[in-house]
Amino acid sequence: MNKVNLKDKLDSFSEHWSPKIVGELNGQHVKLAKFKGEFAWHKHDNEDELFYVLKGTLRMEFRDKSVIVNENEFIIVPKGIEHKPLADNEVSVMLFEPNTTINTGNNPGELTQKDLDKI
Amino acid sequence: MNKVNLKDKLDSFSEHWSPKIVGELNGQHVKLAKFKGEFAWHKHDNEDELFYVLKGTLRMEFRDKSVIVNENEFIIVPKGIEHKPLADNEVSVMLFEPNTTINTGNNPGELTQKDLDKI
Repeated sequence: MNKVNLKDKLDSFSEHWSPKIVGELNGQHVKLAKFKGEFAWHKHDNEDELFYVLKGTLRMEFRDKSVIVNENEFIIVPKGIEHKPLADNEVSVMLFEPNTTINTGNNPGELTQKDLDKI
Repeated sequence: MNKVNLKDKLDSFSEHWSPKIVGELNGQHVKLAKFKGEFAWHKHDNEDELFYVLKGTLRMEFRDKSVIVNENEFIIVPKGIEHKPLADNEVSVMLFEPNTTINTGNNPGELTQKDLDKI
């Protein structure tokens, strides 16, 4: 029951596309991540994902549209929906998703992260 | 897959201790609430709760300690742990918890909110 300071946690890492676990509850993870550039198209068959923008601007690409998510906004990507996060400049995000979620979903590759750090 | 702007949502209501649903994923609710004053002691037998402070300062009382949660900090209260939120001045929080969660937990009363608004 200790509090978590998001700024302190964000200051503790710099790598992109490498989510860190900062909390766990009800089988869900709270993660922090920094994105820059372009991720891979993917979907999660069993997990909805929430992206909350703490700093910067996230562009979430879908097959039929693109959504700009600014600071203090979030977007929920439902399971089964293909998406690709993009960030022209670095963006810091908080993620809420089941603890079973793999970042690249159905499209594993070089960007896949397993055994995430808890910070 | 529309984004949610937390400031717009917060501006849309003013009542205290009345959480509003702003998102749902994986059987969890994302809620916004404004607290001011003192809530009732309670616990949730089956639900962990996350309180993320968007604006202001939250004091979370436990039977054996008190934790001050400032802006951009969160605290997770595990199931079964008695707690009482307090706010000397108004605080705006985002909650992340199962969609079965009743705000007053095991201590229903005048403060109990059911059939929460989705905003």
